[in-house]
Order: sequence, then structure tokens, then C-alpha cells
Amino acid sequence: MIIDVHGHYTTAPAEQQRFRVDQLAALDDPTLPPPAQPKISDDEIRESIELNQLRILRERGGDLMLFSPKASGMEHHVSDQATATEWARASNDLVHRVTELFPDAFAPVAQLPQTPDGELSPVIDELRRCVDELGFVGCNLNPDPSAGYWTTPPMTDEYWYPLYEAMVELEVPAMIHVSTSCNPNFHTLGAHYLNADTSVFMQLVLADLFVKFPTLTFVIPHGGGAVPYHWGRYRGLAERLGRPDPAELLRNVFFDTCVYHQPGIDLLARVIPVANILFASEMIGAVRGIDPETGFNYDDTKRYVEAAAHLGAADRAAIYEGNARRVYPRLDAALKAKGR
Amino acid sequence: MIIDVHGHYTTAPAEQQRFRVDQLAALDDPTLPPPAQPKISDDEIRESIELNQLRILRERGGDLMLFSPKASGMEHHVSDQATATEWARASNDLVHRVTELFPDAFAPVAQLPQTPDGELSPVIDELRRCVDELGFVGCNLNPDPSAGYWTTPPMTDEYWYPLYEAMVELEVPAMIHVSTSCNPNFHTLGAHYLNADTSVFMQLVLADLFVKFPTLTFVIPHGGGAVPYHWGRYRGLAERLGRPDPAELLRNVFFDTCVYHQPGIDLLARVIPVANILFASEMIGAVRGIDPETGFNYDDTKRYVEAAAHLGAADRAAIYEGNARRVYPRLDAALKAKGR
Repeated sequence: MIIDVHGHYTTAPAEQQRFRVDQLAALDDPTLPPPAQPKISDDEIRESIELNQLRILRERGGDLMLFSPKASGMEHHVSDQATATEWARASNDLVHRVTELFPDAFAPVAQLPQTPDGELSPVIDELRRCVDELGFVGCNLNPDPSAGYWTTPPMTDEYWYPLYEAMVELEVPAMIHVSTSCNPNFHTLGAHYLNADTSVFMQLVLADLFVKFPTLTFVIPHGGGAVPYHWGRYRGLAERLGRPDPAELLRNVFFDTCVYHQPGIDLLARVIPVANILFASEMIGAVRGIDPETGFNYDDTKRYVEAAAHLGAADRAAIYEGNARRVYPRLDAALKAKGR
Repeated sequence: MIIDVHGHYTTAPAEQQRFRVDQLAALDDPTLPPPAQPKISDDEIRESIELNQLRILRERGGDLMLFSPKASGMEHHVSDQATATEWARASNDLVHRVTELFPDAFAPVAQLPQTPDGELSPVIDELRRCVDELGFVGCNLNPDPSAGYWTTPPMTDEYWYPLYEAMVELEVPAMIHVSTSCNPNFHTLGAHYLNADTSVFMQLVLADLFVKFPTLTFVIPHGGGAVPYHWGRYRGLAERLGRPDPAELLRNVFFDTCVYHQPGIDLLARVIPVANILFASEMIGAVRGIDPETGFNYDDTKRYVEAAAHLGAADRAAIYEGNARRVYPRLDAALKAKGR
């Protein structure tokens, strides 16, 4: 079984974005009526999935994708909590409908109604609603709700603890995933995403978060940003700073395979233990085209995993399935309940 | 000949830092007297170099190091221009003395008196002084003088053009190098440095800076941040965004070898053309210890270059010497004038 842990609903029907546009307009101009809830039929959802993520998943031999709202669309920098909460609910409800229509192919992962330095109780409420009522198996957690200005405390700060307590209780991991960048220095897809991955890993090196929360689990996407490429730097820095070896973090931290060329996946597989690598593609995401050098899609990461010299059959099985079932216990339980 | 293009005077005598402390105190409290200029003897400089960078350079078989003031000490976020100018002058003058005492082993690279969104004319003045009067061969250019808050325009913005005009005229490349981070989200050495490398490369992908300045040259240190590891991502993003292939940037952009483990250098050598890789170690810098897995210093990057399977003897000669002489024409001219 091949599980892709990193997919977003980037192909949602336009009506969903119409709702968001109206919502932001009403926020700007309180004389406008509140936005009408998005009206999307099951057929519209089916079409948006069958022609896109489901088609590609099947073409590439995948079985299941963890599916969350579009990451760049979370827009946590819009600081009004009611707006953030309503937008997260609408986004999660739509993703939930996808997973109800295609229960064998998609499992839901939540957008959280974060705001810059905002209260975490609405965030926790939405996480609980998604997990307890809708069967979500994970969440995306944004380390920079300010969208490129990084005004929120590091992820090791006590500010985040109430959310971590809920995650631990609910047994759901978080994928560390920023949303759009409003800072012109950081292109959302070409800088901000990777910088966030890199920055959060170093925050974890510096603190004892997993001593406090031994069962808290983070997935760092996009192959861990710059981290595996600079693994020697992190080992050396940790030693110089009197911190444990970064390998100690690998009880709680996992990297996905969203690295879009063979040398990158080869490095990941060489440097990071197999038990800490989760198969993922992020299709249909940042990089959608066909690589003229290979004739295949850049984001067809299964080809790179298949070709990685450092991996044997058992390694691939762990990367494709076993690790994901361990990291996402609610996914594992749901699959087992269906005899999968 | 082996040229290390990335070294900082991290071992300057304490008197230099005393000057800085006094300078900042006088800035805080204008009733204090102006700081006394640092008084450092030639012998103190000799000792600080002979026991440290020169010793290690020789032990590792290196011949020459490009040498600039300590990067994290540039502190461009201190926004008073007079303070920035005086600090850059004092720092550059000290580096110049190192290169006068050890002219065969060190060549000087300038700290620029940048401030957040500040005027560039004092920056250009100091660059001209260093190059025209003191024989400097390059400079360090900080894309984020705000120290982790990224309030300055991207490096492709017209804001920077006057400096680029001076660099082109003087034939000096810039190493893109941030200073300390004041943002608790970004550890200076474990996140901010790498993020800056990554972010600036993506800025270059998005704009036509080198159409405007065809002979402008940037060195992106720390192995290019996350860029080579994600080279497929950049190729795919560029195509999606209607931008030229990132390989087009390699007429003007070079990466150093400050990547502190074998798999990282192997990836760099596999992905980036040999002509765009410059040998560097940043010793004595961020990562100073001995890797218990190899028994050698993490930053002994020559060992990784020697062991990189993708490199032959001619490739190593280019990485060690030929590329540096091409990228730093003033270094090449100075060496030729000495018959080297």
C-alpha cells in the first residue's frame, strides 16, 4: 500500500474561493452582507478530484493520500479570529466531503484557524471538531501566521503548549506548514516554505520540547527544507551549543519526500534514517510540470524513491506505508477497521 | 593552489569588541564620551591569526583565504549610519592589517556599512575606499540588514542598483551574507544564514537582474542554502512561473562548499556545474568541532571535495583555484602581479 502524506485541495471548485473573496470583502467593509456559505454539489467535488488528484494518484500507483485544504490559501495573517474560524471550518468541511466521497483514496488533515499571536483556544476547538466529529487524522500547523514576518514565538515556546497538549491527547501529528508569504523577500513556494522547514528544525535543536511532550509528533515537509543537505552543520552546531545530537529529535520528527529530483531524494535516503521518511508528493502543488530531462512530472516522487540506490524493498515499504501508519495512529486505526 | 573564498576574522583580539561595546554604549547614552579607537598591536594580530586560521589553513593544505570581518558581528540592524560607517571602517582596517601582515595567505573582503533601508551612498563610499585604497577583492552584502525581520526590498529591487553599479565598475563580487538574527524564530547560524541563501536565490529566479547587470557576480555561501538540494523544485517553479531555467543564473551566481558532511558535498557536486562551485570552509566559523563519525573537523571541507565521487582532478583544480580567480578578478590580478 502506498500512502502519500502530503496533498492539498488545490483544485477546489471556484465557489469556495468566491466565499473567501466575499468573506474578506465583508471584513473590509462591514456594511456588506455576510458572505453566503459556499454551495458546492457532490458532482462538482467528484469532478474536481477525479480529474486531478485521484487520477494522478492512480496513474502513479498510489493508494491513499492525506488531504488538507490548500496551504497557501490558509492565510493566517488575516487577524480577525471569527474570519479565521469560519474559513477553517469551511475549508475543513469541504475536505471532509472529499474524503466521504472517496473514503478509500483520501484521509482528511485539518487547517487550523490560527492568527498572528492569536489565542489558541479556537484553534484547539477546530482541531477537536475535525478529529472527534469528522475523523481527521492530522493537522497542518503554521509556525508563522504573520505570513513572512515571523512575529509569533518559536514553536518551542510555551505559547504553543495548549495546542500540543490537545494534539497529544488526540493522537494527531502536525505537519509544519506555513501559508502564503506577504513579505516580498520570500517567494511563497520557492523560499518561505523551505525557510519555515529549516527554521523550525533549528528551533527544535535548541529546546527540550520533546522532553516535555514525548509523544508529540511533527512532520517537516519539503524534504525537511535545507536540513538533510546540511545535516553535518546541525550535528556540529548542536555539539557546539551543548545540545543533544539532532538524531535525538528523530523520535518525534519526520521528513517527507517532497523533493523534486533524484539527487535530492538520494541525499535524503542516505542521511535520514528510513524510519523517519514519509512518502509524499504534494501533487497537485507547487511544481506541476514535466521535467524535460526525465520526461516525467517533477512531483512524481515515487520514481525517485524507486530509483534511490540506498533503499531496499523493506525500506520502500516503510517509506510508503509503515512509517505513515506509525506516525498517524488514527489513520492506521481507520485502515485496520476497514481490513486494510 | 588552494583558495578558500570564505573566512571571517572570528578570532580578532578582544580590544576590537571592546570598541564595539563602547560604540553602542555611546549610541545609547550620548553623554558618554565617543569610544576610543581600538588599539591592537601587530603582534596581537599575528598571534590571533597564526594560532588559528593560518595554522588550520596550513594544516589542511590551503594556500590562501579570502578574509572578511566576522559576519555575525556586522550588526547592520543598528540603524545609525555614523555608527555603521565607523564600525565597518574599523573592521575593514583590521582585516586589512591581517592581509598586510600575511599577504601570501589572506586577501581582504569588505564589510559594508549597511543599515535597514538606509542610504547606499555611505555603503558605496566604504566599498570604494576598501577596493581603491586598500586592495580589497570582494565584499559581503547583507540582504536583510534588519536582522531577521526582512524589511529591506528584495535584492532585485532598484534600491540596490547604485551599489551594483559600483560593484560592476570596481569588478568585485559580493558574497550574499546576512549578519546576526534578532528574531527568536531564526537561529543565526542554524536558520538565518541558510534562509537568506535560499531566499535570495529565489529572488534572482523571479527577476532579470543579470540582464540589467550582465557582469554582476554573487557568491551564495553555505552551499547555496537549500537550493542545490531542491534544484528540481527551482527548475519546475521557474517553468511554472514563466521564468528562465535557473541554470541561466549560473553565469552570475556561484555557490561555495561550506556544507559540513560528505553527502552534502556529493549532492552539490552532482547538481551544480563544477564551474559554479568555489572552495570554502568558513573556518573558524559556525561549526568548529570534530565529527566523531569521521574523526576530522566538520568544516574540513577539503576532505569532502577530495572524496566526492563526481569530481575529477581537473574539476578539483577549478573548484580550488580556477573558479575563484575568475570570480574575483582583482584577486587574480594581485596573484599574477606576484607571479602566482
